[in-house]
Amino acid sequence: MSDKPPTTFLSKLLAATRRQNSLLCVGLDPQPEMMPIGNVFEFNRAIIDATKDLVCAYKPNLAFYEALGMDGLVTLKRTVEYIPEDIPIIGDAKRSDIGNTAAAYAKGLFVYFGFDAVTVNPYLGYDSVSPFLEYHDKGVFILCRTSNPGAKDFQDFQDSQGQALYQRVALKAREWDHAGNSGLVVGATYPEEIKWVRQNCPEMPLLIPGIGPQGGDLEKAVRYSVDRKGERSIIVSARQVLYASKGKDFAQAARQAALKLRDEINHYRGLDSP
Amino acid sequence: MSDKPPTTFLSKLLAATRRQNSLLCVGLDPQPEMMPIGNVFEFNRAIIDATKDLVCAYKPNLAFYEALGMDGLVTLKRTVEYIPEDIPIIGDAKRSDIGNTAAAYAKGLFVYFGFDAVTVNPYLGYDSVSPFLEYHDKGVFILCRTSNPGAKDFQDFQDSQGQALYQRVALKAREWDHAGNSGLVVGATYPEEIKWVRQNCPEMPLLIPGIGPQGGDLEKAVRYSVDRKGERSIIVSARQVLYASKGKDFAQAARQAALKLRDEINHYRGLDSP
Repeated sequence: MSDKPPTTFLSKLLAATRRQNSLLCVGLDPQPEMMPIGNVFEFNRAIIDATKDLVCAYKPNLAFYEALGMDGLVTLKRTVEYIPEDIPIIGDAKRSDIGNTAAAYAKGLFVYFGFDAVTVNPYLGYDSVSPFLEYHDKGVFILCRTSNPGAKDFQDFQDSQGQALYQRVALKAREWDHAGNSGLVVGATYPEEIKWVRQNCPEMPLLIPGIGPQGGDLEKAVRYSVDRKGERSIIVSARQVLYASKGKDFAQAARQAALKLRDEINHYRGLDSP
Repeated sequence: MSDKPPTTFLSKLLAATRRQNSLLCVGLDPQPEMMPIGNVFEFNRAIIDATKDLVCAYKPNLAFYEALGMDGLVTLKRTVEYIPEDIPIIGDAKRSDIGNTAAAYAKGLFVYFGFDAVTVNPYLGYDSVSPFLEYHDKGVFILCRTSNPGAKDFQDFQDSQGQALYQRVALKAREWDHAGNSGLVVGATYPEEIKWVRQNCPEMPLLIPGIGPQGGDLEKAVRYSVDRKGERSIIVSARQVLYASKGKDFAQAARQAALKLRDEINHYRGLDSP
């Protein structure tokens, strides 16, 4: 019998973070009009081959596959299968529905597609999130403060004590996290919010989109999001890496962009080489 | 040249409501463990054949198809194609993402699957909803007050003036509805909330889940949700119709259940036969 603890999303994430010395997560968001080659799976494969020793996770966003119809979804499944077993895959699905329906989504994402973690939208409350949390070996990133301008429309909504909705979401997520398998999504475009969330949720992994074209501040995003060991933060880049070149050298250019970002992130973590 | 106005979701919905004299929408949510036959498409086809003269719309929830993997999604596409052209189809997807990603979801749902309307989650704010609203001939139902117990966790969050989040969502949705193609989802389990939403959004179609097993009050749901003409309300039933019988007579039993519900709804609309 083995004393080895079971593999969870978090253990897999921390192992990849340390092995690759990286907080970088490449967003696998294929947009045919921006791609240098026509075949989406071949594109993803080239990107994965070029970056798989540089990342702590991959994050395909389901929207870009659904936009391509059934072919896109077949490609998504093949892509998930192609990614090396020891790199966690976050299915960016932002799903939400009531209890039994949320359970159907969780089954599709965790069992059929085989994602190690997913993103979920909290608007429907506890019974929309709990069917995901019941998969204890999987990770569940709850949208807290999203990276887009519209985040302000509702996430800044404040109660009479000055607590904003995104803060309430963070505190509720912490309260619901009985199995230690929940995380939060906080956009790099809102560094003060990242700081608040990290202070209030010291153990939870944070998924940080919004650097690059969205204009998030990388330095603050890294410094404010890491835990005391400089971990449990996942910094997402999609377009900056995927479309670093539109020529035949796109994979090599993606590698260079990923390498540069990984090192820049490590610099802000205080991990420069001596 | 024709003077006929373009077909929009709303015009199609109102035409179906009047032609079939019905506010009933059957939720096409196949759950294999509850189904009397094994093939999901054959099940859906039998339900559609048995109810297509009794409904104002059909509403497949994508979760139940995604749970079945690629076969489920192929079945969803075939189901959408099978539904008669003059009955609007609402894709219950509850999608949400930032601008360019939301546009990819909208493309998948409206262009690839061909839904007449979809449901979207408002947590990410205006730029997550606007890519859907840009399809002027399509309907966009924004989640306002959902039917589940967890709705209270965040949707009741109140600002210092006593305005609840779901109310803010309703008022924002009304403000964003430049093309008149937006609606709201309000659960039958929260009748006072339906009343408030209808009073404040007199023109918007309301999608009302939550009757039947969820325990919503049908009479109040109907009376409070209809507009001044007794229209623009879509009362959803899924399990009550789909699983009215687990025997070989399931389609006939579904028809009887749908007929009874349609008439009960019409009774509350004040449309009893003389």
